[in-house]
Amino acid sequence: MRHQITGFSNPTIKRLKSLREKKHRKREGLFLAEGLRILAEALDSGRTPKILVVVEDVELHPLAQKIEAATLAAGGDVIETSEAIIAKLSGKSNPQSIVGIYKDHPIALDELDRSRSNIWLVAQALRDPGNLGTILRTGDAVGAGGLILIDDCVDPFSVETVRASMGAIFTQQITQTRWQDFLSWLRSGPGELVGTSLNTENDYQSVQYKSPTFLLIGNEAQGLPEEYEADCDTLVKMPMMGKADSLNAAVAASVMAYEVLNQSRQR
Amino acid sequence: MRHQITGFSNPTIKRLKSLREKKHRKREGLFLAEGLRILAEALDSGRTPKILVVVEDVELHPLAQKIEAATLAAGGDVIETSEAIIAKLSGKSNPQSIVGIYKDHPIALDELDRSRSNIWLVAQALRDPGNLGTILRTGDAVGAGGLILIDDCVDPFSVETVRASMGAIFTQQITQTRWQDFLSWLRSGPGELVGTSLNTENDYQSVQYKSPTFLLIGNEAQGLPEEYEADCDTLVKMPMMGKADSLNAAVAASVMAYEVLNQSRQR
Repeated sequence: MRHQITGFSNPTIKRLKSLREKKHRKREGLFLAEGLRILAEALDSGRTPKILVVVEDVELHPLAQKIEAATLAAGGDVIETSEAIIAKLSGKSNPQSIVGIYKDHPIALDELDRSRSNIWLVAQALRDPGNLGTILRTGDAVGAGGLILIDDCVDPFSVETVRASMGAIFTQQITQTRWQDFLSWLRSGPGELVGTSLNTENDYQSVQYKSPTFLLIGNEAQGLPEEYEADCDTLVKMPMMGKADSLNAAVAASVMAYEVLNQSRQR
Repeated sequence: MRHQITGFSNPTIKRLKSLREKKHRKREGLFLAEGLRILAEALDSGRTPKILVVVEDVELHPLAQKIEAATLAAGGDVIETSEAIIAKLSGKSNPQSIVGIYKDHPIALDELDRSRSNIWLVAQALRDPGNLGTILRTGDAVGAGGLILIDDCVDPFSVETVRASMGAIFTQQITQTRWQDFLSWLRSGPGELVGTSLNTENDYQSVQYKSPTFLLIGNEAQGLPEEYEADCDTLVKMPMMGKADSLNAAVAASVMAYEVLNQSRQR
């Protein structure tokens, strides 16, 4: 259905705005995505918003019209409102803004289909939403199956993560679990667990990765806990030619993921 | 010299805090760096702060003591102040905070010594401080010579960029110039200009990069302008196996930079 809402104090607007906070996302099982590019990616992945918010009295971009039609066809709502209210929801002042409210889609660990891809990303206690979104984006680019979140990671459905993922939030399977549960699941089927670490002499290019490869990325400040490193099948490191001893977490994940992809392209 | 300052309204504190803004950084030729890890990296690169700000009445970490001694030995000032004031300067509430005020160090294009490295990074209209800092950090890791900024890039000496660089701001040569001036300088010596683009069929691993390689990274949203692509010696693209057609700018720069490094390691 189509509605027009003009007041900031409208309860629906208040409710949508509350989705910027994790507790409200959890309670409702919904999250916010913003911007035409990301919403188009969602549609391309077969996802339509439960609620689409567009600017009133403005002719929509053809892609936005397509998203609107798909939303209504799927029984969703379209809200027409002011630029100011959209800016409030999206946190951006761009008058071309478009916001979609989607059902979140965490899945259970045992629903992951590891045969779906050669590459899986595993993040441990990752705290920066930009890094997590960037890792999802790289995951999509290398054809990863999904992202497994271990310990206290930032919420993958936060506005910042979704924005940094550039739509990959809709293409990657996402699950959240504990280390021991992950290990039990991992060991119940094929798969090599690879961690990046300073505590090894293995160059990341000297190793032949077995399929599927699970790439483990540690916390931005601490890296991986020692016990987790001990559980890995292989530890590798990237060459560091300068003064620093580490890369940004999303960069390290991406350089590793491309190495695994490149090896599989050569087979 | 060593001073103790306790008031938020102290003119020195106000002045230092003003360095969080670009216009004040430009006017003073100074910038703020925060955190022990980054300040230690600076010292390791032979850089001491003009002014070091530490928490009063707290025994400093041995590394912080070393930085303090080096600052005083180089004729700099040490300010002891409250945690609250340090938090104000650094934008963080961590009581272990330590802040250094450094002379900025942009250099002129013709001062760049291209024989210093096989890899140079060139950023065009990069807008995100986190991306720019991450690119500096990767530059340090791959042993790049420095970063050349083209068009309207974010300030490399902003607090956010310096933080994301994790100290690489001190190891990388940084210059800011215009496209035509860069091209004239580039063509006056050896060097291959490589851009990543969707408008090519060249796989990034199928190309043999010539030394020194100048890796051109375009704006986050628009990529490289067509005219700039036309000026490149080589355009390459990374494989994209998913729905997205691009990577995060810092990730793309890093995957490219590691490919160039890896090729030079095999020679």
